[in-house]
Amino acid sequence: MVDHGGNLDVARSRFGGEPADWIDLSTGINRLPYPVPQLSTHHWHALPSRAEIESLHEAARAAYHTTAPLLATAGAQAAIQMLPRLAPPGSARILSPTYGEFGHVLRGAGWAVEAVSDIEALAGAGLAIVVNPNNPDGQRHDPEALLALATRVGRLVVDESFADTTPELSVAPQAGRAGLLILRSFGKFYGLAGIRLGFVLGGEADIAALAAASGPWPVSGAAIEIGRAALYDRSWADQTRMRLLRDAARLDELAQTAGWKLVGGTPLFRLYDAGDGLLAQERLARARIWSRLFKGRPSWLRLGLPGDETEWQRLAAALAR
Amino acid sequence: MVDHGGNLDVARSRFGGEPADWIDLSTGINRLPYPVPQLSTHHWHALPSRAEIESLHEAARAAYHTTAPLLATAGAQAAIQMLPRLAPPGSARILSPTYGEFGHVLRGAGWAVEAVSDIEALAGAGLAIVVNPNNPDGQRHDPEALLALATRVGRLVVDESFADTTPELSVAPQAGRAGLLILRSFGKFYGLAGIRLGFVLGGEADIAALAAASGPWPVSGAAIEIGRAALYDRSWADQTRMRLLRDAARLDELAQTAGWKLVGGTPLFRLYDAGDGLLAQERLARARIWSRLFKGRPSWLRLGLPGDETEWQRLAAALAR
Repeated sequence: MVDHGGNLDVARSRFGGEPADWIDLSTGINRLPYPVPQLSTHHWHALPSRAEIESLHEAARAAYHTTAPLLATAGAQAAIQMLPRLAPPGSARILSPTYGEFGHVLRGAGWAVEAVSDIEALAGAGLAIVVNPNNPDGQRHDPEALLALATRVGRLVVDESFADTTPELSVAPQAGRAGLLILRSFGKFYGLAGIRLGFVLGGEADIAALAAASGPWPVSGAAIEIGRAALYDRSWADQTRMRLLRDAARLDELAQTAGWKLVGGTPLFRLYDAGDGLLAQERLARARIWSRLFKGRPSWLRLGLPGDETEWQRLAAALAR
Repeated sequence: MVDHGGNLDVARSRFGGEPADWIDLSTGINRLPYPVPQLSTHHWHALPSRAEIESLHEAARAAYHTTAPLLATAGAQAAIQMLPRLAPPGSARILSPTYGEFGHVLRGAGWAVEAVSDIEALAGAGLAIVVNPNNPDGQRHDPEALLALATRVGRLVVDESFADTTPELSVAPQAGRAGLLILRSFGKFYGLAGIRLGFVLGGEADIAALAAASGPWPVSGAAIEIGRAALYDRSWADQTRMRLLRDAARLDELAQTAGWKLVGGTPLFRLYDAGDGLLAQERLARARIWSRLFKGRPSWLRLGLPGDETEWQRLAAALAR
């Protein structure tokens, strides 16, 4: 089992409390979500139709500035689960450290997986994986460099799960080239991880293969209705981008007062060198604020951004203690 | 692409009208759905936790009278999509005619698929598939015969997507034996196909393999919250079973006045010999009532049950015309 943020069960079993007592900053999920519209009973009742799914695809193409083949999936994770089905097991290189599920899923499907720490070391790989901007350290990769890399590997997967706040980093506008697959998450930026929605963009053959693997009803009616409304709402997205940028700076200031050093991050999460990560996590956990640690990196602590002012005050108080 | 009911796009492109104008009887989805409770913002926002998913599993075990290993999936269809991953491609036999996705998915994954018309012909198969009660003809198989068959095949899949109204047919209470996999649909009986929820029950190794293939968040927060409430609501289920039985008899009477002969069915759908199926479909479609035809069976017409009294009156009027 891969270690994930967002599992409050672990926090509660160690430190007690009810779910509602906790501020979960262990993920990069926006805590001020897109307001869920009143849902029609139709979307609960009926199977999503082809036309409805296609209208969600159109909304995603508009949001991601592409006309390329694209498929809605039950979260970016669902696309990761299907990656091994695009080719017979071979060898993959993953720019690391990064999101643990790529290596886990590929190894489970019989792939030989190599973690590399330099993007140049990906060249020549049968399957190369880059998360941009990267989770957990926020490392950014130049889109031009990635497009060049795509021509030097069998297949390049660019996971843009945290790219909504930095659209200038996205290669989605260049989607459609053979050998380039792009993953997008809906739940993180829109703060609606529970609806399970993401997208994969790519060449026609890859998207057709993934569509066949995911079947006729890959996402729920609620995901279609909410996703369509949110992806067309440019004003909410613009305001949220600006708010997250401001709030990330505010979190960095708070962290500085606690003596933590910024390692990197995106406007949805910040990675700090907290000296003793475990100690820092326990200090926050006593105030029912949950954070994320990383195996093999004992000084690291990752924090999502608090939502409303009450949450900011609770975090400030916990850090001042 | 497999032909499915529930795709009103086709009806509209042929006969016009807005989705709300149509009564969709082309599926076996209950048109008087379980009332969706007010959903907590938590379930939209957060990733489903292990404890939440496990609590849904418990609700399903209670509803299906089993303590066996079980996995929530994004509809029974999601389990079908993963079937080919349980074993290297081999040969499968499907008791036919039945739901088209089994053959489609297995062939797509490189399996040799044989349609057989007699349950005895399944014995000796590497993978055998039975839908009980069957869609579209409602054929029923004795649970004891299925359990005996399970010992004579490599793996037996029993799709109980329409078994909620005939719990006496279910082998779910015997789930857990190696080589027996049982699929359950949530959306049909509860009338909530849009939330994408189903379950697969089986031996420990198979369920673990399917869990690995579906990843850490196989269903949405809404599916967890609604599914848990509905599966524990025995009184709604009992009343709905009785109502569907009464309504199925009412539909048969209506069909008889139209000169159609009952071929078979379940309390969620009825299959009629309408003489000329296409003509019967067009007659209903002019009244904006959508039905299901079957390739190679030109006299067959399948109808789900109307929901409220207005829908019954519209159907009666269309048949009297």
